[in-house]
Amino acid sequence: MDEKSIPGSGSGPSREAAASVPTDETDRLISSSKVEGTAVYNTQGERLGTVLNFMVDKFTGQVAYAVMSFGGFLSLGEAYYPLPWKVLTYDTRKRGYIVDLDPSELEGAPSYKWGEEPDWSDQAFSRRVHDYYDLPLYFGAH
Amino acid sequence: MDEKSIPGSGSGPSREAAASVPTDETDRLISSSKVEGTAVYNTQGERLGTVLNFMVDKFTGQVAYAVMSFGGFLSLGEAYYPLPWKVLTYDTRKRGYIVDLDPSELEGAPSYKWGEEPDWSDQAFSRRVHDYYDLPLYFGAH
Repeated sequence: MDEKSIPGSGSGPSREAAASVPTDETDRLISSSKVEGTAVYNTQGERLGTVLNFMVDKFTGQVAYAVMSFGGFLSLGEAYYPLPWKVLTYDTRKRGYIVDLDPSELEGAPSYKWGEEPDWSDQAFSRRVHDYYDLPLYFGAH
Repeated sequence: MDEKSIPGSGSGPSREAAASVPTDETDRLISSSKVEGTAVYNTQGERLGTVLNFMVDKFTGQVAYAVMSFGGFLSLGEAYYPLPWKVLTYDTRKRGYIVDLDPSELEGAPSYKWGEEPDWSDQAFSRRVHDYYDLPLYFGAH
C-alpha cells in the first residue's frame, strides 16, 4: 500500500504526529496482511531473510511460528524455516526481527521447500521444531 | 479455500492422510495470509460478517484485535469493527469466530469505513475500544 497520510484520525493533542503514522503498521502493531516481507537479522545485524507468514493459534490468538524465508542462504536454495515465536526479538530500530542463531545452527534447522509445507497439526513435527530450539512444546493443549 | 475433506488431520503413521491436509490451516493454526475471510457469527449462529485482518503485537506475538467487516449490516453500510481478541471465541465446528454481542451492542461499537483506518498507535483509540467492550486496555506497556 502507499504511505498516504491519514488526516487526523486522531484524538488527543498531537494530531500532526498521528497523521504521519502509516496505520497498518505502528510501533506496536502490524496487520496480518502486512506481515510478509518483514526483515530478519542475525545478532550481528546482517540481514538473513524475510518473514513469509505467521502461524497463529486460532484459539488463543498467539503467534506460534513465524516462517522465515532464507533465500539462497549458504547456497541452500530458498527454504522456509518455521521459528517458534520465542526465538524472535523485534527490533524497533531495525524494524525487523532478530534471531539469535548462528549460520551453523540455522543450517540444520527444520525447514521445507516451496510447495512442501509441513503438516502443522502433526505433533511430531511441532515437537521436532521446538526440540531443535530447546523450547518446550508450545501447545499445552495439543 | 475450497472445502476439501480432511481425512484424519492426525499425526502418526497415516502419511497418506497427512498429505491431503491443507497445511495453511489446521485445527489449531491458521496462516496470517489466510486470516481474511474467516466467518464471524453471533451466539445464535447467524453469520454477521468476516474477518478483515488481525492486528498483531510485534513484540509479544499476541493478536490484539481482529477487525471484522459487517457488510451492510443493519443498513449501516460496510464498516470495520476492531474487536479486542477477548471478545472472540473460535468455534471449531463452525470454523469461525463467535462474538457474544447483540446487534444493538454492535451498532454503537467503534468502527470505521474503508480508507479511514484509525491510528492504531493512538492510545485514546485503544482505550475507547476496550472501554466499549468492558475490557482492560490490552497494552500494559503502551
